[in-house]
Amino acid sequence: MSQSYIQNSQSATLPLPKKVTIYEVGPRDGLQNEKAIIPTDTKIDFINRLSQTGLEFIEATAFVSPKWVPQMADHEQIMDGIKRHENVCYPVLVPNIKGFERACSYNPSHIAVFAAASETFSQKNINASIDESLKRFDDVCRQAINKGIKVRGYVSCIAGCPYEGDVDPGKVAYVAKALFDSGCYEVSLGDTIGVGTPISIAKVIQAVRNLCEDCTLALHCHDTYGTALVNIMEGLRHGISIIDASVAGLGGCPYAPGASGNVASEDVVYLMHKMGIETGIDLISLLDVANFISQQLNRDLMSKAGRALQNQQ
Amino acid sequence: MSQSYIQNSQSATLPLPKKVTIYEVGPRDGLQNEKAIIPTDTKIDFINRLSQTGLEFIEATAFVSPKWVPQMADHEQIMDGIKRHENVCYPVLVPNIKGFERACSYNPSHIAVFAAASETFSQKNINASIDESLKRFDDVCRQAINKGIKVRGYVSCIAGCPYEGDVDPGKVAYVAKALFDSGCYEVSLGDTIGVGTPISIAKVIQAVRNLCEDCTLALHCHDTYGTALVNIMEGLRHGISIIDASVAGLGGCPYAPGASGNVASEDVVYLMHKMGIETGIDLISLLDVANFISQQLNRDLMSKAGRALQNQQ
Repeated sequence: MSQSYIQNSQSATLPLPKKVTIYEVGPRDGLQNEKAIIPTDTKIDFINRLSQTGLEFIEATAFVSPKWVPQMADHEQIMDGIKRHENVCYPVLVPNIKGFERACSYNPSHIAVFAAASETFSQKNINASIDESLKRFDDVCRQAINKGIKVRGYVSCIAGCPYEGDVDPGKVAYVAKALFDSGCYEVSLGDTIGVGTPISIAKVIQAVRNLCEDCTLALHCHDTYGTALVNIMEGLRHGISIIDASVAGLGGCPYAPGASGNVASEDVVYLMHKMGIETGIDLISLLDVANFISQQLNRDLMSKAGRALQNQQ
Repeated sequence: MSQSYIQNSQSATLPLPKKVTIYEVGPRDGLQNEKAIIPTDTKIDFINRLSQTGLEFIEATAFVSPKWVPQMADHEQIMDGIKRHENVCYPVLVPNIKGFERACSYNPSHIAVFAAASETFSQKNINASIDESLKRFDDVCRQAINKGIKVRGYVSCIAGCPYEGDVDPGKVAYVAKALFDSGCYEVSLGDTIGVGTPISIAKVIQAVRNLCEDCTLALHCHDTYGTALVNIMEGLRHGISIIDASVAGLGGCPYAPGASGNVASEDVVYLMHKMGIETGIDLISLLDVANFISQQLNRDLMSKAGRALQNQQ
């Protein structure tokens, strides 16, 4: 990228945040949903490389059953093996108290719990109704907070469900509020199958804000239909400044037919920097990691900004 | 696409147009910039298929010198061969009076002229300074308007130039105003190398509007860095409702190193329809044409919405 293209001043018509935090989900949400099984040493190398890019949050793995999610079976080796950078948090996903207790051996500063705004998705994805899962997460939250561990909540299917179609923004707000009430410090709103638009995303954010004033929201957009960045821009306009992304666009959702593609971290970071919004991330270093993991998966780099920047190097 | 995902109501926070007109540039801007030479019969078949999708504007070819643009050498055969649909306009690009006079044999209702907001790009692309090109187009416009032919003006490099870097929005406004003063009914603002962001695009539109009140603007975004849709959304927020796009994302710019990728028409149409904005286009028919031309070019379909919709069919 030629530096001469950078434009730092922001237009008065766009009330955008000055700083955006990228919450990197590649090692967990990304690799969990790739068909290829990546060797544990490669995952550790991957996370260590990500730790050098300026990222503040790298969701490292999931303490889930290897029977259900074989890609995350090496979660203990991952947490043993990675070299923790002092400026980086390494949240881990926990599905229940059992997973939480095992995760605690690794002294996590942050954990994450994963709920859905669609009954059918909740049943198929985590084998529990929405209310059952919220009860389960309430127990996890209580114990975590007692230990001084911060809990992030996910709400998936915020803009549509692969099984049920439309999802009521009120249902998203209900689930988000329950997670905040349980003590989550932040809730990430996930467009799991990438069917959101700026209009539907705005409605969801407004519905959540109506029920959960002054709460910290993150946005987790999939680029299945190419709309992740427009939806992220809409989130920024609504004051959201924490954006989930997956380096090299790793992952998707095995439970959502036809769904693929977390938004690529490098595409998000490129756009933020180009608008003069800080992320604290070195884009070229991030691009190197995107290339590294793409090579491990035997694929070309998929991100548009990544490819374009690469052509110029 | 499952119909159940369609959400037709628009949020009060987004003052978006109810109808967006897609100006299809695939057969001209797209094929002109593909390395492969497509047989004339295939191009004619391509345009005829596009004519059945509900598109109202299909830029068909360019009356340029075969010496400079061999891909458009068959412009006369194209205009002779296509079956004109009564609801479709088939503008042709003309670089000068000579091209205009040859185009006139085919009774065009619309022509287009192509200026730049960057001196170096203008010199390298059309071998004339900006002011020389504007004088040339003024002559073309006067003669065209005398014959009742409508003239569209292009301004390229609105958000950056591959040779000069940053481009002054005031310069874009100057060129746009000159084109309107010459009689253009519409000016298309082109982010030729895809370096725009919602912030820079907003500034350009505001600068043009300051100088050219109540004039009809179109937006021509490239997706080089994945930002075409965010920039198009910004255009819509500023009242622009004519969007240039290239089916299957055909083309790029041979004069702009590193530049590739007009935004894919099907990605734009998907997003518009999903937001409840009419285009008059049948998305599935458009997708069929995108697949047809991708096969002719021996490539996979590149558009994200296209690929996702295809997986569901």
